[in-house]
Amino acid sequence: MKHSLSDLAIFGGPRAFDALLPAGQTNLPEWAKVQEMFSGIFKRHYFSNHGILAQELEEKLCEYLNVRNAVTITNGTIALMHTAVALGLNGKVIVPALTHPATAQALSWAGLTPLFCDVDPHTLLITPELVEPIVRKHEASAVLAVHLWGGVCDVDGFEALSSKHSIPIFYDAAHVFGCNPHGTMVGAAGAAEIFSFGADNILNAAEGGLACTNDDELAAVLRNLRSSYGRRKNVPIPVNANGRFSEFQAGLALLSFNDLEKNRIENRGRLNQYIDGLSDVDGIEVRAPDGREKHNCQDVVIIIDEASFGLPRDMLFKILVSENVSLKNHFSVGVHRRPPYSNDPDERSMMPVTDMVAGSVIMLPSGQVVTEKCVEKVCSIIMYAHNNAEEIRRLCK
Amino acid sequence: MKHSLSDLAIFGGPRAFDALLPAGQTNLPEWAKVQEMFSGIFKRHYFSNHGILAQELEEKLCEYLNVRNAVTITNGTIALMHTAVALGLNGKVIVPALTHPATAQALSWAGLTPLFCDVDPHTLLITPELVEPIVRKHEASAVLAVHLWGGVCDVDGFEALSSKHSIPIFYDAAHVFGCNPHGTMVGAAGAAEIFSFGADNILNAAEGGLACTNDDELAAVLRNLRSSYGRRKNVPIPVNANGRFSEFQAGLALLSFNDLEKNRIENRGRLNQYIDGLSDVDGIEVRAPDGREKHNCQDVVIIIDEASFGLPRDMLFKILVSENVSLKNHFSVGVHRRPPYSNDPDERSMMPVTDMVAGSVIMLPSGQVVTEKCVEKVCSIIMYAHNNAEEIRRLCK
Repeated sequence: MKHSLSDLAIFGGPRAFDALLPAGQTNLPEWAKVQEMFSGIFKRHYFSNHGILAQELEEKLCEYLNVRNAVTITNGTIALMHTAVALGLNGKVIVPALTHPATAQALSWAGLTPLFCDVDPHTLLITPELVEPIVRKHEASAVLAVHLWGGVCDVDGFEALSSKHSIPIFYDAAHVFGCNPHGTMVGAAGAAEIFSFGADNILNAAEGGLACTNDDELAAVLRNLRSSYGRRKNVPIPVNANGRFSEFQAGLALLSFNDLEKNRIENRGRLNQYIDGLSDVDGIEVRAPDGREKHNCQDVVIIIDEASFGLPRDMLFKILVSENVSLKNHFSVGVHRRPPYSNDPDERSMMPVTDMVAGSVIMLPSGQVVTEKCVEKVCSIIMYAHNNAEEIRRLCK
Repeated sequence: MKHSLSDLAIFGGPRAFDALLPAGQTNLPEWAKVQEMFSGIFKRHYFSNHGILAQELEEKLCEYLNVRNAVTITNGTIALMHTAVALGLNGKVIVPALTHPATAQALSWAGLTPLFCDVDPHTLLITPELVEPIVRKHEASAVLAVHLWGGVCDVDGFEALSSKHSIPIFYDAAHVFGCNPHGTMVGAAGAAEIFSFGADNILNAAEGGLACTNDDELAAVLRNLRSSYGRRKNVPIPVNANGRFSEFQAGLALLSFNDLEKNRIENRGRLNQYIDGLSDVDGIEVRAPDGREKHNCQDVVIIIDEASFGLPRDMLFKILVSENVSLKNHFSVGVHRRPPYSNDPDERSMMPVTDMVAGSVIMLPSGQVVTEKCVEKVCSIIMYAHNNAEEIRRLCK
């Protein structure tokens, strides 16, 4: 607990955490179960290229997500790249400016040009209404929508937009595995939905990705793109790439999938603790899922209102980092303002909501390693910073 | 052993192998050691993004390969893509037509156009002499040379070519980890050398890749491209991508690296057994390393002279596959004749050596799972096919 300003590490005090409290190293299954799973891989002596565990995982995920095809791929970014190429897209593709940089970068790797769209101020998602004028103006060849922080796009509205303008919609669903808004599991909408099984996510294979689609032909192209040599029917593809998912990734993902409900409950507990712990701090809004049957609660996202909180986001960010709290900053600048896109004249068009959110967001630590005690400490640092904002501002000048 | 034609599985006989003899699932370390290594990952609760094991691996490989920077990346293809982008290349890049398709495909993903070059009939490698006329004619922006099947390119000659024409040379070294021709370890030549730690290779992380370079600025760009967020100095990069190497990959690679000399000796033993077992079969040449201090012996490559052997390569391929021998066919067609390159008018230029080799090569099974008994069986099937070639041809018509 901090009692005076000199207790803050930023002013030379001892760090609140002796070891770095890591960001994005969330849930892993029990080691004993992993041992059993991995020993099977060694017995079978088959390590990669659409092995028996990858096949089992794909089958289970098809059933769970209620989708015809679930194609495991190296990681989420590569899965997005493959999907963009498999869809045969050209030219410009609309993406939200408020997203992980990888969403836009995957398009660049696929030879496409991202066309940025601002987001709705309440849901922080792009909407058919925001997208349609851009489609009309720029001849976009597709829309890559992003379900963000548990929020899920208006897939029915996008379906109508897709039909009306005859352009495919696909989804970056990296953050929303297991979310089930209004009773419909995310995974089967649009031309494809792409998940990440990176260490940040509730379904954690250390690294990993998944492309889901009800279009069997698209799935066949994806399977060939991934290079599962000889394991599925051969179809012509634009260009091959190594997107293979190893048996070790598949083993971790299968066990993580078994733990899904447990991890969901633990994540919910941590999120609730943050909500409670920060409820008395003016100017901090903890984004919380609302009205959904199921939510993965994996991201703890706070939005800071500088006027009420008393400090700008960047200053709170620095205070937390100096206490040994690792914070990701993928969202701290809209992607339209990041290289290589910031040189594009299109980027200079106004994205007021994205700029506002990106300038005021912090993603707080979550995952197994973040104990109740850790959450308590993080909340108390934030509260202390708020209560002493004026003096901190003065000292930091 | 086959005693009559009807003993061949292709003519309805029992398969020589009850279970598929896998291709490209080579050496893994002992399970007990993997358990110990992986339990540490669980204890540290840090799974990916340039963790402690990835750092240890990079340090060890720098020392072993005698190179300033060794950057671990998801897989070899992604490492090639990242390197091509990090080098800031544009336009056309020369590659051998006789290579794994991934070499050329990585260039395509990086927005570059492969310009194919035929190989030397003895070394099966491209040479400065073969490359220079293409550089003059086509304004190539770089050369991506390939060290193939243990054979290592004339790096001094390419260095001279690079200086003379002011274009970078980089190397696909996927097949030659640990090779040490004439006392110089492969890994530090040209602008960069890229290895694969895929399950096919002597250093096996199930999936994995490595970009090596003595150019510290190029390495910094590669580390940022890979997205090791916040772990190294930030430098501007063309476009980010997820090329992260997980701690599980790093743990496997470290143990595999410890086993390198053991695996080298085992591979050499298998290769020698194939050489002996096929020495009496006319029309079969087993490619063998020659005059090198160290060789990884990971690939067992045979070249079939149809006239002397009595059967075309494709027929021997079918005979072996029907006996449950899994054979890779990445090299069975020159990359200039594969989509998407086969539509390119340049591809119609003559590549006589590549076409000859690609049309006559088979890569035989290797790796831990291929016991002495297995090699014996494979050799005896090949010998039986040779001794009964005329009748097999007649029956297959």
